[in-house]
Amino acid sequence: MHIKKLRLLTPGPTPLYPPALHAMMASDMHHRTEDFRKVYKSVLADLKDVMGTSGDVLMFVSSGTGAMEASVSNLFSRGDKAIVCVAGKFGERWAEIAQAHGLEVTLLESAYGDTVAVERVETALAAEPATKGVFVQASETSTGAAHDVRGMGKAVAKTSAILVVDAITGLGTMPLDIDGWGLDVVIGGSQKAFMIPPGLAFASISPKAWQHYETSTLPHYYFDFKKEKKNGANGESSWTPATALVLALAEALKYVKQVGMEKLIENAGLLARATRAAVQELGLELFSPKSPGSSVTAVRAPKGLDSGVIVKEFRSRFGAIIANGQGSMKGQIFRIAHLGYFDFADLFAVIAGLEVILHAYGHPVTFGAGVAAVQKVYCDAAVRQTVGV
Amino acid sequence: MHIKKLRLLTPGPTPLYPPALHAMMASDMHHRTEDFRKVYKSVLADLKDVMGTSGDVLMFVSSGTGAMEASVSNLFSRGDKAIVCVAGKFGERWAEIAQAHGLEVTLLESAYGDTVAVERVETALAAEPATKGVFVQASETSTGAAHDVRGMGKAVAKTSAILVVDAITGLGTMPLDIDGWGLDVVIGGSQKAFMIPPGLAFASISPKAWQHYETSTLPHYYFDFKKEKKNGANGESSWTPATALVLALAEALKYVKQVGMEKLIENAGLLARATRAAVQELGLELFSPKSPGSSVTAVRAPKGLDSGVIVKEFRSRFGAIIANGQGSMKGQIFRIAHLGYFDFADLFAVIAGLEVILHAYGHPVTFGAGVAAVQKVYCDAAVRQTVGV
Repeated sequence: MHIKKLRLLTPGPTPLYPPALHAMMASDMHHRTEDFRKVYKSVLADLKDVMGTSGDVLMFVSSGTGAMEASVSNLFSRGDKAIVCVAGKFGERWAEIAQAHGLEVTLLESAYGDTVAVERVETALAAEPATKGVFVQASETSTGAAHDVRGMGKAVAKTSAILVVDAITGLGTMPLDIDGWGLDVVIGGSQKAFMIPPGLAFASISPKAWQHYETSTLPHYYFDFKKEKKNGANGESSWTPATALVLALAEALKYVKQVGMEKLIENAGLLARATRAAVQELGLELFSPKSPGSSVTAVRAPKGLDSGVIVKEFRSRFGAIIANGQGSMKGQIFRIAHLGYFDFADLFAVIAGLEVILHAYGHPVTFGAGVAAVQKVYCDAAVRQTVGV
Repeated sequence: MHIKKLRLLTPGPTPLYPPALHAMMASDMHHRTEDFRKVYKSVLADLKDVMGTSGDVLMFVSSGTGAMEASVSNLFSRGDKAIVCVAGKFGERWAEIAQAHGLEVTLLESAYGDTVAVERVETALAAEPATKGVFVQASETSTGAAHDVRGMGKAVAKTSAILVVDAITGLGTMPLDIDGWGLDVVIGGSQKAFMIPPGLAFASISPKAWQHYETSTLPHYYFDFKKEKKNGANGESSWTPATALVLALAEALKYVKQVGMEKLIENAGLLARATRAAVQELGLELFSPKSPGSSVTAVRAPKGLDSGVIVKEFRSRFGAIIANGQGSMKGQIFRIAHLGYFDFADLFAVIAGLEVILHAYGHPVTFGAGVAAVQKVYCDAAVRQTVGV
């Protein structure tokens, strides 16, 4: 074998920020001490800062799915009417969670790769004024498509419903004006744009969402928004926190603040634009051409080639782990991520590797053509800032 | 700023092997314990294995320069006649060390980028039959050129002199048949093909070199070959060992053995070949076209562009640290490394980045052309092994 570095390039876990990993080594620390409370408080404050909300931000030891369920079990009651936008695997997850808790769900479904239009949400809200909540993905990770959550926020704000946004891959890859757009709950996860391993989830809670909390009757214990808010104010978590991950997050948030959330989003946007240009140059088809998001770009495998083969070849040739399609799209699409600790040098290598793999399977490729498309996007957008530095 | 990952891509320190770095975390270990002796012994045995010699291999806590000096202070005496091949900064270092210890040095000089031919060594040996030692670089890191140490070994073997080879960047990048070619002392360093941070140096010692040890009268204390050999046999170091680095090396050597020294050398050779093809495709000139080594490729900067600017641009645009020229070549050449934990995906990114930088400074570049040259070398050499895997 030749040297092949392991490169974690999936839309989550995303590539890890090394100083954050190193920070985990300091976790010989007790969580009920002033030292740790200081870290915990600063992490909550920095999260609030980078999420850009004046509302509350809570943190949980769980995957993102835990915070998704918490937003149902803390803010709704059995029999509550809810609208769920489903345009991929994670939309389906919202539906499953809401149904598991006995909500009366209206599904607004779109094909994988497509999105649910704001107008359909408006129509559904008008048809059922008693709707208590609308659930949606900011970025549908399984397809790479992005929803117009701004438009949905506007629509939902006029009603007594709250808008619950899974922004697990949306945070740090697209603008999300939580307060201004009326996004009542926005959920994030540590292993995405926050550049650290999985295990922590976040949720912002608007005043309107807190009103829902007061009337919710669904049972919950581990995930309790009010308890977590009260403890968080004192630098405490309700239950034992994942100290190593909190230390990593503290370090990663320093970096995110240094880069700036706006630039982090621009970074993902540039990589996404360059990726779209490159795969189209290589004669491949985008899976979500109408509403492409910036967290991940889903690409259709060439006819006759299973996308799983492309994923395997990336691993066996270049040590790079990229993502297959999920759910019904497995084998049909592959996904190139852009979020978090991911840069242009990574993308140069991914596209050059893709060219080699396509060529090996008989797809006509001009070597370097996809890379050139990435270089052009880089030069148009980014070069001017640093020439001569 | 956008995301730019720090990428250490110099010919030393080379990119680090992550599991080796992680192994350093286990260094809360005392060095005079059976646990550590076991590690130390296995590291010495593995070093001997990957260096492929039946002679002794010693390890020192020092940079490579320490082991270079040790080979003079342990094997020679004041006034000994020595031949030093000088074709770059590290050849000059051999001369400085030999002169510092009072050896009578005959310099065989070649221009930077060139090499010293075996015939010149033969002639010099014939002219001075009392010569005690010949000093040379297997790979002259400052220029990227490789010496014919095989030919030199043959020439020196016929005399009473010993051949002392600085293989600090040669080990793991070029075949070195230590026993078969008569390489009496071969020196290596941890921060090169061994993929760990600097701080450990190695030296293989032939039976002929041990005879020199017996007659050497130069003063030395910290570096003592015989003392180190005796202690090493018991899994001990003469002085306090750098425990963290030894643990890292143990892990890295496992990986080097798994890859296989032959494949590691082939890996560097392929990257070097691909780099030469790419830079020539981009209209740049190789600095050592006649005897290009596989540890590092030195490239002349285009006319009117200081190579230091290219190095700075790599850092500021792509977070990548590549090497400037050394000594008199500073500002004139830049160096792309191939040794150690360095793979094709790294090279795709480096060449794509180089194209962008050249373009920004007005050098005519077809985007993707250099990358395509790398892809071609990859496909010709490596693809066949893994298609369909």
